[in-house]
Amino acid sequence: MKVLFHINEPDFWPRVIINVSNFLRDVGPGRASVEVVANGAGVLAYSLDKQDVIKQMEELHGQGVAFIACRNALKMHGISEQALPSFVTVVPAGITEIVEKQALGYAYIKP
Amino acid sequence: MKVLFHINEPDFWPRVIINVSNFLRDVGPGRASVEVVANGAGVLAYSLDKQDVIKQMEELHGQGVAFIACRNALKMHGISEQALPSFVTVVPAGITEIVEKQALGYAYIKP
Amino acid sequence: MKVLFHINEPDFWPRVIINVSNFLRDVGPGRASVEVVANGAGVLAYSLDKQDVIKQMEELHGQGVAFIACRNALKMHGISEQALPSFVTVVPAGITEIVEKQALGYAYIKP
Repeated sequence: MKVLFHINEPDFWPRVIINVSNFLRDVGPGRASVEVVANGAGVLAYSLDKQDVIKQMEELHGQGVAFIACRNALKMHGISEQALPSFVTVVPAGITEIVEKQALGYAYIKP
Repeated sequence: MKVLFHINEPDFWPRVIINVSNFLRDVGPGRASVEVVANGAGVLAYSLDKQDVIKQMEELHGQGVAFIACRNALKMHGISEQALPSFVTVVPAGITEIVEKQALGYAYIKP
Repeated sequence: MKVLFHINEPDFWPRVIINVSNFLRDVGPGRASVEVVANGAGVLAYSLDKQDVIKQMEELHGQGVAFIACRNALKMHGISEQALPSFVTVVPAGITEIVEKQALGYAYIKP
């Protein structure tokens, strides 16, 4: 199973974390490719000092979940790529990433 | 045609109902498989005493629309499965249901 | 690449415009089929006198982006089809348009 979660609202990170966690627990370890793509204001959570959310992302990353940031969004919000947590991968354009992953058979979910 | 509607906000039920109704009227009877998957706070409408929304769901169910509730969300909101309307089907994890249906060719719509 | 953007909230037009613009700049001219489908209150932007948004849509339309309005939504909001900008195409039901385009391989994005 392959699934991409799209987030562009900072307040929606808790529900994304819960959705991803429940999904991984439901399907079991190693059964799914999971990617979270943040664009727009969704990238803010990567830079803010919200240690609880970052820690939850880190745990999910340890289970294989990819966390993506859109470079356009980082620039728009004045976030330095050097300031991002090490588990975050930056792509040139979040929308292109979402389009390409769906073309590869990823389900799209907007929590 | 196959289509899945995803709802995780209680306030969005009226637009989901309208979207599904317009779609069914547009394509005609028996032409589409339609499923509505509620997770997060979207499941609240199944339990609240909102008789007008429940009645609209019931009418759509009579036209073949499946209404799904995520068990994780029911637990999180303290909703007993026994209290649900009889036309609601409970699945272990709403996200898994959404992923599987997209893999089967269902279009995904987030109203 | 083929991608459909779905908008049903009038306030989300700026982010749709930015998402589409960044995507087109990222992939380069003539590399993608892009369609924006507005239903619900998303159609309001086509009728309001918001000249800046309409102008941005017009520029994107010049780059090949299709702008679609749902007839059900136009009726619900009392918008005359004659009052729409000339670059807007009206379809009988926005949801059917979204379902059909996904069946044709379009990625779905809800900004």
